[in-house]
Amino acid sequence: MSAVVIMGIDPGLNRCGWGLVASEGARLSYIAHGVIAPAPKQQLASRLLCLFEQLGEVLDAHQPNEVAVEETYVNNNARAALALGQARGVALAAAARRGVVVAEYSPATIKKAVVGSGGADKNQIAFMVRRLLPTAGELTADAADALGVALCHAAHAGMRRRVGM
Amino acid sequence: MSAVVIMGIDPGLNRCGWGLVASEGARLSYIAHGVIAPAPKQQLASRLLCLFEQLGEVLDAHQPNEVAVEETYVNNNARAALALGQARGVALAAAARRGVVVAEYSPATIKKAVVGSGGADKNQIAFMVRRLLPTAGELTADAADALGVALCHAAHAGMRRRVGM
Repeated sequence: MSAVVIMGIDPGLNRCGWGLVASEGARLSYIAHGVIAPAPKQQLASRLLCLFEQLGEVLDAHQPNEVAVEETYVNNNARAALALGQARGVALAAAARRGVVVAEYSPATIKKAVVGSGGADKNQIAFMVRRLLPTAGELTADAADALGVALCHAAHAGMRRRVGM
Repeated sequence: MSAVVIMGIDPGLNRCGWGLVASEGARLSYIAHGVIAPAPKQQLASRLLCLFEQLGEVLDAHQPNEVAVEETYVNNNARAALALGQARGVALAAAARRGVVVAEYSPATIKKAVVGSGGADKNQIAFMVRRLLPTAGELTADAADALGVALCHAAHAGMRRRVGM
């Protein structure tokens, strides 16, 4: 069985985290992570383009087989949802442009997959990501979230493969 | 004075309107319009990519000097704002990718520029767009909105040029 390279993305206009893991059977290994932070003083369209192009460079460099993003939690702040939606849109388009299928997971599904409980908090996710991927070293919150989504996808995709879905 | 080609975009995930006008001094003329409607059954990322690529084809075909979009009116529906944000993000990135500066106008500014009153309704905008651009023929609401943004930008950009801003 050859390794599947999974890229997790935590979209954001100011800071977009990304993380890559390899999944081979039950074995998981860390590949790379990073944060893209477009210059806040640029025009909105330029910042979105920066995000699109830099995610494209990561996709080209690591050629993930699968991409996973968190289903966005939408609270009542419509203005924040619009800003996040813009960043999310370019992230999804950048992945689709490479022909990679994008999977989406709810925050509860990610928490359950990584920590074991759908009610876990952000710190618990970061803690488990560091434990499961010890070679990742120091992680910012955005990068830990992105690796968390990738780990969640690895668990779910591994299960799909095992049950032959 | 040579003509400035302006592209207006009315972003949307199900239907994205676009319209092009040429502005030469006080003279305005219609160039083209259309609506991009990604297949609703496709994966979200594929629909966003479809939007990105088809807007890119229009940008490449008509090489607008300037692009204008409506500042999104954000009501309390955060879920709708997220969906619209995703479509808007790829539209802005597609324009920025061609090095075109994107201008944004509030709905009231567009209404005031096209109809003369910030409180005008959608039908009045469509009516004035058809009057100002008689060669455009039959227009769907999305295309009329996109041409309305382009006309608004023509009025504002023309004024900027005249006062030497």
